[in-house]
Amino acid sequence: MRATDVIRQKRDGEALSEEAIDFFVRGVTDGSVPDYQATAFLMAVFWRGMTDQEAAWLTQAMTRSGDRADFSSIPGAKVDKHSTGGVGDKTSLVLAPLAAACGVIVPMMSGRALGHTGGTVDKLESIPGMTLSLDLDAMRGALAKVGCVLIQQTSRIAPADKKLYALRDVTATVESVPLICASIMSKKIAEGISALVLDVKAGRAAFMKTLDDARRLARLMVAIGNRSGVRSEALLTAMDVPLGRAVGNSIEVIESIETLKGRGPKDLEELSVALAARMVRLGGVAATNDEATAVVRRALASGAGVEKFRQIVEHQGGNPRIVDDYGLLPSAPHQETVPAPRGGIVTDIDAMEIGRASMVLGAGREKAEDSVDHAPGLWIRAHVGERVAAGEPLAELLFRDTRRAAEAASLVSKAFSIEDSAPPASPLILEEITT
Amino acid sequence: MRATDVIRQKRDGEALSEEAIDFFVRGVTDGSVPDYQATAFLMAVFWRGMTDQEAAWLTQAMTRSGDRADFSSIPGAKVDKHSTGGVGDKTSLVLAPLAAACGVIVPMMSGRALGHTGGTVDKLESIPGMTLSLDLDAMRGALAKVGCVLIQQTSRIAPADKKLYALRDVTATVESVPLICASIMSKKIAEGISALVLDVKAGRAAFMKTLDDARRLARLMVAIGNRSGVRSEALLTAMDVPLGRAVGNSIEVIESIETLKGRGPKDLEELSVALAARMVRLGGVAATNDEATAVVRRALASGAGVEKFRQIVEHQGGNPRIVDDYGLLPSAPHQETVPAPRGGIVTDIDAMEIGRASMVLGAGREKAEDSVDHAPGLWIRAHVGERVAAGEPLAELLFRDTRRAAEAASLVSKAFSIEDSAPPASPLILEEITT
Repeated sequence: MRATDVIRQKRDGEALSEEAIDFFVRGVTDGSVPDYQATAFLMAVFWRGMTDQEAAWLTQAMTRSGDRADFSSIPGAKVDKHSTGGVGDKTSLVLAPLAAACGVIVPMMSGRALGHTGGTVDKLESIPGMTLSLDLDAMRGALAKVGCVLIQQTSRIAPADKKLYALRDVTATVESVPLICASIMSKKIAEGISALVLDVKAGRAAFMKTLDDARRLARLMVAIGNRSGVRSEALLTAMDVPLGRAVGNSIEVIESIETLKGRGPKDLEELSVALAARMVRLGGVAATNDEATAVVRRALASGAGVEKFRQIVEHQGGNPRIVDDYGLLPSAPHQETVPAPRGGIVTDIDAMEIGRASMVLGAGREKAEDSVDHAPGLWIRAHVGERVAAGEPLAELLFRDTRRAAEAASLVSKAFSIEDSAPPASPLILEEITT
Repeated sequence: MRATDVIRQKRDGEALSEEAIDFFVRGVTDGSVPDYQATAFLMAVFWRGMTDQEAAWLTQAMTRSGDRADFSSIPGAKVDKHSTGGVGDKTSLVLAPLAAACGVIVPMMSGRALGHTGGTVDKLESIPGMTLSLDLDAMRGALAKVGCVLIQQTSRIAPADKKLYALRDVTATVESVPLICASIMSKKIAEGISALVLDVKAGRAAFMKTLDDARRLARLMVAIGNRSGVRSEALLTAMDVPLGRAVGNSIEVIESIETLKGRGPKDLEELSVALAARMVRLGGVAATNDEATAVVRRALASGAGVEKFRQIVEHQGGNPRIVDDYGLLPSAPHQETVPAPRGGIVTDIDAMEIGRASMVLGAGREKAEDSVDHAPGLWIRAHVGERVAAGEPLAELLFRDTRRAAEAASLVSKAFSIEDSAPPASPLILEEITT
């Protein structure tokens, strides 16, 4: 087999065989297919797309390029969740302990994505002592004991994805649905899970701006999972306004714990419970979504979820007392409120502007090698649908650098719309894709 | 400017600016744009195409990557011809001396293309002593004295083309009209010519199989030339049957000389005169094609053309006596005729099969680093429209290796169609593209 022939087939819009895809991915990983052939191939895939079957083979070949966990020695279904990411999205921190408290094994590995705040592992890193790097043996031990790990992907997971992503990044081939889906799914399949729930966001602050695009992405990821032995389902959810009230790193940990204590914002709780319920159902703990939702709600109400979170933190070396004393988490030295310019009802908060403000405050990461500042961020004090008087706080900024606060305040002001009457209700969960 | 942005623009089907194209070509040439970005770009161009203006800018940037000849010190218009190549195509050897004999300066540089026989320089190399490598100074001297050089492209001509071609070859991006045209025209423009005649072949043994495809190629090359200060015209010509009777290297030299002596096959003479006449007209020696044709025909009839050929050979160190004594050229030790299986009229000769036979006999080159054998080849003894009796020779094979002769004979047999009645006349010159 020659790489040129594989490129030509894809260039001409043909569907590739499993052998051809496997040959290519192995070659890219071991260097026998040079980068200049890899990138021509990536552009041809960008152009011609892939069938579901090709995308599944691509995903599987990428998974095979590295370690694949095997947790079969641990009883119970292994189920994970993946989100395409949004502003204020901290559902992982809520649903992973909840699902684990219901008896599902959750081997969650996350990357350190670029974004307006850090990723799940960055947020958790604000917990003093918490280690986010476990090898497969340590992971197995944690799952056997606690039922859940929240850790960083190791470099041994899907190295082909790392190589291909680096090439896509410099050749304008990132935004390809099959390549995006294969990248996400190859790493999730490597976790050794039997089921996966996907939270695919649609909206102005999501990677996919339209419901159509989000649906395409979700459908293909579900197809890839199902063709690869991982029972997969997706929720399409709205990402136009921030999820919850906290946007940052340590403050998102705080809001997640508050939610596990039953005192969180309703939108975050609703989405976390909905996703956890699907994990619980796919994990075989409950037969229907309603039944699974009841199980999850019981774990929330009983405190089993927050107790599980405490166990996870403790097992990974973190200080479990942060669950009760948020003062142990990093906090920013300064705070400032952004006042409402007029009275009325908040009808909209542009999550994109809020995300930019968070970035300006230092909570995010522009380049992969940047470190994240855990302390800064912002609290939404008046969320959509809430009434505010002129001069009352819309948001509270937490920061180190006063000059940056002014820029962030201006972005936050721009993000809010205040009107006389309440906005129409807009659903958070838009659609469900189960096949 | 960033390479990724240029790739993205082309990926999205946008027309690139001259600056963007120049940046990219310079980067590929000096290595500041890595190969993996170059190939993603090439695939995007393959997909999205280029406007005439983009292709002209690409061509000019490729020309600028190397030396560009300046023969302004030599009086007279500098005009060249380029052919996309076909089986038995030796028109360069006929028309270059003819045009030069009419007062046009012909600075013809050719590559050593892959093919069923060698290229023009390979054929000329069969002349004992002939040198095909001249630097720009030696070239200028030869043009001042003889009015024509027939030499090999130096590595200093359009190095960007060499780099890009090598990358296209291994990424299935060869067959892109703008990339093909830019590759050809960048090298021709570097010759410092003011006009160019293109012979774009269409047919089963041509690079472009259909007239439509040939027309697209010709139109773009003419547009590139005209936008780059090189007045360009194209003839679309048929390449279904071999041109002339000789297919090989030294025997094509013989047939070219015979044609210059007025004893060549009519098709070869017709095409050579037609192309030379356009060179003469574009060179300002004659005002119309008819007038130019008369000038060229006089040079042919007077022997001025063959005399010019003798001068060219002598000036480039070759033995001029080969013009009168073909025995001084390399010849194959063995010969064998392929007999007609039945009597009748030859109605077709598949040039593709003849080309394959020539390759089998050793006259061609499969890989760029292969050397060409000048001696073997084949003579067509009964061309299309000619009557043959059963057992009379259709072709004569000239070879070194007896085992190869049998395979070649079988290919040649397959190439011929013999029927009872004459085939309909089919024109050699199909179309003319002047703008």
